[in-house]
Amino acid sequence: MSEPTHVNSSDLSLEEEASLTSGSDSWHVQGLPDRGLEGYMITDGPYGLRKAKDSSSTDVYGSVPATCFPPTAGLASSWNPELTYKVGQAMGEECVQEKVAVILGPGVNIKRSPLGGRDFEYWSEDPVLTGHQAAELVEGVQSQGIGTSVKHFAANNQETERLRASSDMDERTLREIYLPAFEYIVKKAKPWTLMCAYNRLNGVFGSEDGRLMTDILRGEWGFDGIVMSDWGAVHNRAAALNAGLNLEMPPSDSDDQVVAAVKAGELSKEQLDKMAQGMIDLIEKAKPAMSRDGYRYDVQAHNQVARQAACESVVMLKNEDGILPLRSNEKIAVIGEFARTPRYQGGGSSHISPTMVTTALEAFENSSMEVSFAPGFTLDEEPQDEALTNEALQAASKADKVVLFLGLPEEAESEGFDRTSLDMPAKQVGLLGKVSAVNPNVVVVLSNGSVVSLTDWLPQAKGVLEAWLLGQAGGQAVVDLLTGRANPSGKLAQTIPLRLNDDPTVLNFPGEEGHVNYGEGVFVGYRYYDTLDKPVLFPFGFGLSYSDFEVSGVQVEKTGANAARVHATVTNTSQVDGAETLQVYVAPGKAKVNRPAHELKAFSKVFLKAGESKAVSMDLDERDFAYWSRIMKDWHIEAGDYGIELATSSRDIVQTVTIHIDGDGKTFRLNEESSMQEWEEDPIGSPILSAKLKELEADGVHLPDDPNTMVLFRTMPMGTVVTFSGANGRQVIKDLMASYKAALAK
Amino acid sequence: MSEPTHVNSSDLSLEEEASLTSGSDSWHVQGLPDRGLEGYMITDGPYGLRKAKDSSSTDVYGSVPATCFPPTAGLASSWNPELTYKVGQAMGEECVQEKVAVILGPGVNIKRSPLGGRDFEYWSEDPVLTGHQAAELVEGVQSQGIGTSVKHFAANNQETERLRASSDMDERTLREIYLPAFEYIVKKAKPWTLMCAYNRLNGVFGSEDGRLMTDILRGEWGFDGIVMSDWGAVHNRAAALNAGLNLEMPPSDSDDQVVAAVKAGELSKEQLDKMAQGMIDLIEKAKPAMSRDGYRYDVQAHNQVARQAACESVVMLKNEDGILPLRSNEKIAVIGEFARTPRYQGGGSSHISPTMVTTALEAFENSSMEVSFAPGFTLDEEPQDEALTNEALQAASKADKVVLFLGLPEEAESEGFDRTSLDMPAKQVGLLGKVSAVNPNVVVVLSNGSVVSLTDWLPQAKGVLEAWLLGQAGGQAVVDLLTGRANPSGKLAQTIPLRLNDDPTVLNFPGEEGHVNYGEGVFVGYRYYDTLDKPVLFPFGFGLSYSDFEVSGVQVEKTGANAARVHATVTNTSQVDGAETLQVYVAPGKAKVNRPAHELKAFSKVFLKAGESKAVSMDLDERDFAYWSRIMKDWHIEAGDYGIELATSSRDIVQTVTIHIDGDGKTFRLNEESSMQEWEEDPIGSPILSAKLKELEADGVHLPDDPNTMVLFRTMPMGTVVTFSGANGRQVIKDLMASYKAALAK
Repeated sequence: MSEPTHVNSSDLSLEEEASLTSGSDSWHVQGLPDRGLEGYMITDGPYGLRKAKDSSSTDVYGSVPATCFPPTAGLASSWNPELTYKVGQAMGEECVQEKVAVILGPGVNIKRSPLGGRDFEYWSEDPVLTGHQAAELVEGVQSQGIGTSVKHFAANNQETERLRASSDMDERTLREIYLPAFEYIVKKAKPWTLMCAYNRLNGVFGSEDGRLMTDILRGEWGFDGIVMSDWGAVHNRAAALNAGLNLEMPPSDSDDQVVAAVKAGELSKEQLDKMAQGMIDLIEKAKPAMSRDGYRYDVQAHNQVARQAACESVVMLKNEDGILPLRSNEKIAVIGEFARTPRYQGGGSSHISPTMVTTALEAFENSSMEVSFAPGFTLDEEPQDEALTNEALQAASKADKVVLFLGLPEEAESEGFDRTSLDMPAKQVGLLGKVSAVNPNVVVVLSNGSVVSLTDWLPQAKGVLEAWLLGQAGGQAVVDLLTGRANPSGKLAQTIPLRLNDDPTVLNFPGEEGHVNYGEGVFVGYRYYDTLDKPVLFPFGFGLSYSDFEVSGVQVEKTGANAARVHATVTNTSQVDGAETLQVYVAPGKAKVNRPAHELKAFSKVFLKAGESKAVSMDLDERDFAYWSRIMKDWHIEAGDYGIELATSSRDIVQTVTIHIDGDGKTFRLNEESSMQEWEEDPIGSPILSAKLKELEADGVHLPDDPNTMVLFRTMPMGTVVTFSGANGRQVIKDLMASYKAALAK
Repeated sequence: MSEPTHVNSSDLSLEEEASLTSGSDSWHVQGLPDRGLEGYMITDGPYGLRKAKDSSSTDVYGSVPATCFPPTAGLASSWNPELTYKVGQAMGEECVQEKVAVILGPGVNIKRSPLGGRDFEYWSEDPVLTGHQAAELVEGVQSQGIGTSVKHFAANNQETERLRASSDMDERTLREIYLPAFEYIVKKAKPWTLMCAYNRLNGVFGSEDGRLMTDILRGEWGFDGIVMSDWGAVHNRAAALNAGLNLEMPPSDSDDQVVAAVKAGELSKEQLDKMAQGMIDLIEKAKPAMSRDGYRYDVQAHNQVARQAACESVVMLKNEDGILPLRSNEKIAVIGEFARTPRYQGGGSSHISPTMVTTALEAFENSSMEVSFAPGFTLDEEPQDEALTNEALQAASKADKVVLFLGLPEEAESEGFDRTSLDMPAKQVGLLGKVSAVNPNVVVVLSNGSVVSLTDWLPQAKGVLEAWLLGQAGGQAVVDLLTGRANPSGKLAQTIPLRLNDDPTVLNFPGEEGHVNYGEGVFVGYRYYDTLDKPVLFPFGFGLSYSDFEVSGVQVEKTGANAARVHATVTNTSQVDGAETLQVYVAPGKAKVNRPAHELKAFSKVFLKAGESKAVSMDLDERDFAYWSRIMKDWHIEAGDYGIELATSSRDIVQTVTIHIDGDGKTFRLNEESSMQEWEEDPIGSPILSAKLKELEADGVHLPDDPNTMVLFRTMPMGTVVTFSGANGRQVIKDLMASYKAALAK
């Protein structure tokens, strides 16, 4: 048996190198057994292992059993990176058992619109929450010697036309909203791989975007892993390799093309060496875990991780009259087909075959509660069945309280298409109306992968648990929460608007004719609603608990010229153990660009026994005050006052402390187009301008005397101002710039 | 005296040609006296003649007297193209007297935001209203042998950074919103000149935009006049000439550069010939009018035109309890400094020295009404003076009714800067509150060049006249309307929102760091509010009258495959003569792109004696149903049902008639990126695909059996679909396209 040391790509033949840069089949990288490199398996995630039974198949619905953890929309709502790490660790263990070297996830694209078809497997409308959560998933998986593939790089925020549409946005929007989660994860968690997006970004396919994969990812962020294609995303393999894509999946039979491209000088040998070396390094990194034969993960323990994760994923949106938790002596009518036939995951490449599933109905029946059940409605699109309604009303009328399980049917949400409405199925909403008329003590439990509209029916429910999709243990988790065995602690990772038409992307989603105009810029989600002070139904970061909390002692300490530490104490003033998530938003003052009213920069989930207090501190660094300047082509921190908000949701600000940030000292330079006012205000430019104006004056060139006219003139580029007054503006500006540059050089 | 026949540019020396392409001073084109070409004067408009006393001066506030017609925001609200023609005619006569060959206007940029600093001299948020009105102004002026300069070409929709910012938008937005007014005017009225904009459009300066000035303006629209620069807009004269700019204003001393550019081959002799020929043609066209020595226009008659125009420019927004018109036996308190010191025009290059001015107070005093006057407030920014308040309240308490003149001070609106708020001065709003408390019978008359917010104080006024800026005869016109000597007939040319934050551009106006993202796309003004069903304070097209009207007999007749005629009868059911403006909106049904809910396509202002009925018909042609397709790079009419709405405002739809439009028959072709579904749905592509799939099947390439997976696959490009199934997608797509093209060629 050969036990080679490290393989260098430059020692390989062109053909060998080329072969490494595509898979051997749909789910395996290409090995080179003669070189001691094995062709390991890589399979879908991101919230569990989707290992195809037949690795030549791309059929997404036949896979080996794996723990189905809560889909990301749920897990994101936990605001608990440590929990997320545990989920990642468990997924990594399952990969070891199943000999899967890389699990394809997490998906960290921003939920630009609540209609996004894949929102259930993305995290949030906010890049900081996304990045901080997903980085822990990556670290958890990779702690087991298994790789992750952070996807889809980048700006893949919809399903419609996702294989060809161009996400059109300006650089500031890209840098502030759509890249930061990737950036944070790359720097913090060093994922082994990234997956490029199908779509174009400003006209360039993800698989051919050298600026993204080479300049930014590797050059700026220091990524040292490999980038693989999304399945079928490569259009031109040589172009992809040139741009920094290491691996095409699934394979196409064009290794020859790669060799030919090198021979024709279209692809440099050095670049192919780099791309192939990335693959060799990946295979070598995976080898220890892939060599652990006979490893078996603990199926029950993983189910418990899934249950805890599900518990923390649920957001309690409403609890009027303390209807929750249910009391053990109450008679409960459990209504809704979802209680018996749970919807616990989304459709598409993320679809898991679970190791086990507990339904909410089973969990109820295993509890000490007295429950009756009525399905209430069917999950198909048939009209409402009167008999089901009547059965439900009868159950409701005999019970103390009703728990009504509503949700989106499976067909409503999947990879591959976007939704077109936030509405719940009309027959379910209709049933709620009737049920609440016979028994007003109704708790609604929602199963949905992405935001639904609650506005019209919310008054008919005294309690609402937004239970998202919760994975295989979700039924048990929901009953834990309903009965008070667990305490809700999830918070919204996405704003719930009053209506779809309020959303900032509504007219630019999902785009048309091959283009999606990201016209709202950085104003996605709460950045839009909060900046314009628009009413929402439930704000970002919102979620109720059975506990009561008090926040006190908010202080902000400067820890550097452009850094600060936020201190606060949170106390559980109730008789119930629970958790509160403190959130820190930074609110820039007057800025040179149009910045959101505030942005989430740090958060901390604090578990508190009844009556317990804890001191919390959270750090803010340079980036937390910066915006991306298109002119500077860099991050820029403006000096000035910034509000530091300690909050429990984006609309529940406990206290704001204003601090002064020194700024990064960078200045904008005068140029050929600078206005008269800018020349006057620039310490170096001002005396140069004065001298030039005197010189012109001597030559008989006079600026207007009228002050109103001068108001107009001061806004104009200096060259235009003097042209207006009869001088040769282009010559004057040449002279001014020459003097300015000379003065700068001194 | 030489009386040369037509001069050909190609007979001139290079130096002569170059000299023609810039002015001789700030306000004269360059003549060639030896060639019989005179250097005529060209001066600012657009709502009156601003002829500098000293033509070497660019001081905008010293000019010879001229009739100050209502600034465009007012005139636009007349919805009366015939009236606009009369105004143009009068302006042309003034040019003849003053020997001005070209008047610089009208400005036809779209009011993208209500904050636009120059909105007072633009027409509307709607391109059809803008185009139909402005074309008549052009025809009116040009009927006198005087040229116009339609400006600012193109996409100049703000003042902030206007000399350097780039208006960034997609082609559909440009074609549907920002170009159509120019296009309509060029085709309908054949203006002698256009003026390029200062700003960039998608990165290219207006003075160097060959696609705009040559390809679109001349190539597509058939423009045969000249394009001059806005004053100081040229950055590189050779580049400007190459792009199709005939004339740089004011002159720079770079004729040599032009000659050098030709010699260096950077500018072709043919292009210089064309540009110079345009200047010669212009001078020759102006000659007849410029030779009419001693012509004197009728100053009084022009003042009457200004008065009529002012009357029709006023929009009555509210008339509760029939508070208007004032009765002759009522005691009226006239309050507000604006009654005595009217604000009747905006600031900047449009500023006119009027031939005479009648204030509202004078007009009241000349009427038979019993009036008292109190200034109420000062027009400066000093805090409210208690004595003025008390004097006003005393006057109000003794009167039957109060007419309160409120408005924006002169400094609030000008060329050169944009507003940052829609708020009225706080002290004026405060005074209204106090006045209405002592006398609830308050009529507010507003003087403002662009939209102000009325939301907070509207309940305190029983009557509101939005009187915009009305030119020199506005005071008289307002009193004509208040007293019922005239009947309000203006309608809003711009939506009045509930608050600024409702505006679709609010986060992208006025842009930052040199770029303005037109992120709202085509959804400007009512196109946004009506499509998303957002509440507004007063909708586009809205305006009250003292008369009552009934619309009946709405019928729509197809006049072609993609054309229709709309018939309606309008009856004045009241005892008062008046005018109603019927509006036709087209509401596309389901469309391939995201189209506004409806768009104004035709309108007709109908004057009706008390009790009179008139039949009206309005035509819709192909363009009225079309959208701009980025894929087809052309207008496209989709076959389908379209709602034809007969309306009296964008929110007052009298009747909708649905008609079928045949469409233009153009089809989208399959291409390398077409999805499986598109192949299946294409009549030519479908059998080709079937054959190919059979062939692949025979080679062992199978698509997944699972229907859910196939839902996903059908959205993907065909090449990706087969790659997934193990075939060489790129080869398959080559084969498919070859067969498709062969089939098409048959």
